[in-house]
Amino acid sequence: MAERESVGIVLLGLGVVGSGVARALTERAETYADRVGARIELRKVLVRDATRERAFAPARSLITTDPAEALGADCDIVVEVMGGEDPAREYIQESLRRGRWVVTANKELMAKYGPELLAQATAGGADILFEASVGGGMPIVSPLRRDLSANQITSVRAIINGTTNYILTQMSREGAAFGDALRQAQDLGYAEKPDPSRDVEGFDAAYKLAILSSLAFHGHVRVDDVYREGITHLIPRDFRYAAELGYAIKLLAIGRRDSDGIGVRVHPALVPSDELLANVDGVLNAVQVEGDLIGRVLFQGAGAGSMPTTSAIMADVLEASRSIVLGNRPSPWRYTADMAMKTISALTTRYYIRVEVTDRPGVLAGIARAFGDNSVSIASVIQKETDDEAQTAELVIITHAAREADVQRSISQIEGLKGEVRQVGAVLRVED
Amino acid sequence: MAERESVGIVLLGLGVVGSGVARALTERAETYADRVGARIELRKVLVRDATRERAFAPARSLITTDPAEALGADCDIVVEVMGGEDPAREYIQESLRRGRWVVTANKELMAKYGPELLAQATAGGADILFEASVGGGMPIVSPLRRDLSANQITSVRAIINGTTNYILTQMSREGAAFGDALRQAQDLGYAEKPDPSRDVEGFDAAYKLAILSSLAFHGHVRVDDVYREGITHLIPRDFRYAAELGYAIKLLAIGRRDSDGIGVRVHPALVPSDELLANVDGVLNAVQVEGDLIGRVLFQGAGAGSMPTTSAIMADVLEASRSIVLGNRPSPWRYTADMAMKTISALTTRYYIRVEVTDRPGVLAGIARAFGDNSVSIASVIQKETDDEAQTAELVIITHAAREADVQRSISQIEGLKGEVRQVGAVLRVED
Repeated sequence: MAERESVGIVLLGLGVVGSGVARALTERAETYADRVGARIELRKVLVRDATRERAFAPARSLITTDPAEALGADCDIVVEVMGGEDPAREYIQESLRRGRWVVTANKELMAKYGPELLAQATAGGADILFEASVGGGMPIVSPLRRDLSANQITSVRAIINGTTNYILTQMSREGAAFGDALRQAQDLGYAEKPDPSRDVEGFDAAYKLAILSSLAFHGHVRVDDVYREGITHLIPRDFRYAAELGYAIKLLAIGRRDSDGIGVRVHPALVPSDELLANVDGVLNAVQVEGDLIGRVLFQGAGAGSMPTTSAIMADVLEASRSIVLGNRPSPWRYTADMAMKTISALTTRYYIRVEVTDRPGVLAGIARAFGDNSVSIASVIQKETDDEAQTAELVIITHAAREADVQRSISQIEGLKGEVRQVGAVLRVED
Repeated sequence: MAERESVGIVLLGLGVVGSGVARALTERAETYADRVGARIELRKVLVRDATRERAFAPARSLITTDPAEALGADCDIVVEVMGGEDPAREYIQESLRRGRWVVTANKELMAKYGPELLAQATAGGADILFEASVGGGMPIVSPLRRDLSANQITSVRAIINGTTNYILTQMSREGAAFGDALRQAQDLGYAEKPDPSRDVEGFDAAYKLAILSSLAFHGHVRVDDVYREGITHLIPRDFRYAAELGYAIKLLAIGRRDSDGIGVRVHPALVPSDELLANVDGVLNAVQVEGDLIGRVLFQGAGAGSMPTTSAIMADVLEASRSIVLGNRPSPWRYTADMAMKTISALTTRYYIRVEVTDRPGVLAGIARAFGDNSVSIASVIQKETDDEAQTAELVIITHAAREADVQRSISQIEGLKGEVRQVGAVLRVED
């Protein structure tokens, strides 16, 4: 077989991540040639605005604003770092039709259209690689695809949104209100302005969890399957009470396989303080995978940022390049299993419930009855801050393991105790 | 291309790990066939004693005590889980000569003969995979080979010997003496009887570090390059003093690339208590890798045991099988770079030094002079336990960053202070 001298790359997007990829391809060309056995050449870069200033500017002759020119350029691998659904999806599909390998950081696309895109890659004799779509530079897609593939995976528990983890860390450490911590995150560029909902409402984590769960459980977990709850309703007192009870509050993305199906959910949860996940602070990401052979294994690293994400994209580019140079056939990921999905109502776990009540006799009895009526057993009740003037008090209740549906019915009943209950301030799941 | 219906495996060894592999291949045959696209068949198992009872017994017709029969059997992949240098090396070489893929858990062999075996694999058109040689089931070889390959790796810091980590955890938590903690480890089957030196003298960690560093720095790090120091000289007081200063004591395996070369060393070290590595307890393993794109990334998991090690071996078997089924050419790891190695004398770090002295005026002056004479600057001195009757005291000294060679000269000088210094009890490096 004639040895190839180069592998051609077309880069779609030249934002924060795209600039990092272009810089790595340019400045590390010799190292990468050495590692792959052929030069990896940047052949064309698609941008929306050719005049914009960039963190790294490739040769002007490489830049184009014409999608047809970029997609039609002679190349082997298309690297998509534009983000969003459209037109990224169309460009990727066009590239796969042309038999090109695709490397993408696009979590939304892979979560929504993964099986379809992988099938197209297979049909075109290429592969679509997406390590950068989850966990930034931290390897997790490839470990699930390859390194843990001998296991039956039982659960994936992850902190996979750096923005919310930064906000929660600030709320926990500084006692900051959600709004203040959010503004700090926005000022540091971690959260989007003006609308941070993608992060703080858990959409980003849900996309990533759909991808991780699909890989872990060998089936297609849809974004719509993911139960999703954000962090906007948390208040500093919850962090203080949780800490007193020996817990940290984290936005967890959890996929779990039980005998009766697979449950996938993104929500804030109480995590025991001595667990590693409880100590993953700031913008770090971490994923804990449990498998029937390996037990628990943990991955932790920078979940975002230009350089870490470039690390993940270039790992895929180098891998694809090695295959292309060797003339190897790819083996795109296959979703093999049919899967029964569980809804959140079927979840059984312990709960932390904070109720603001009127400070007078008999209130606790009414609340306890509501739980009892719905088969929810209380493990502990602590009366917190009271305000003598307003005649209010706050109860923090921890339940024994109970079904979500039963807990939700209890909460409705408690909210109906007018005059006694001012509001149910928080209902948080406990992840022991 | 005609599709293959099966991939044939010959298993060399049926001990704790070999039994796990045989069980997985047998009990998970359907799942693995589904994941690979062909059945993976166990064709022959080489054992020393065919009558011995096993944790899992494959069909009797598969068992042989004749190496020629095992190596001559029709197969694609040879899985070596015998351990030790001979005859494992000869069997692997014979298998590579026959063009077979090899999957091995043999750290000693890969550390000593890795480049030679990989070159033989290349020549034979196959590959030798060795994920299980380091960190048990925890993925680390594949992440270094693939997922982090776009980085220039600057350091690898690892807890990669579960036995010593268990002993150190017991000494720290229970205040146990080394001998007692070792006996506990032996009773639990973590440490070898009667001679535990492979673990407690750091040989095992040194083999693994040689492998990790070779992968991280893309060159051949020899076992003889690794500076090695065991844990037998540690006493419970060191753990107590370290804890008071905010440190845990761990047996670290460290590879670091500096401007003047690569240093590789295995020794007990003080690690700040709030670092994740300080909180990796019991038989767990963890590896922290630092790269110029990714920053720090951490892997943590079960470093040994039948099932975790089976997870790693089977990941390699599945990977090799996919390649074989697709008719793909392997790309064995290549050691590309020439490397300048640094000796331990060139190390610059901070030190914890415990000195038992006679409790009388002027002693500290002599010790301080010894450090000053050798350009070692003292950061703090704390006088610990004194024994009035024996008129002895203990000094715990923390230095500023200093060169190892200078510290060692200081120690010799201090040991020469007869009458004043009873002994230098501990010299431990601090890894901030």
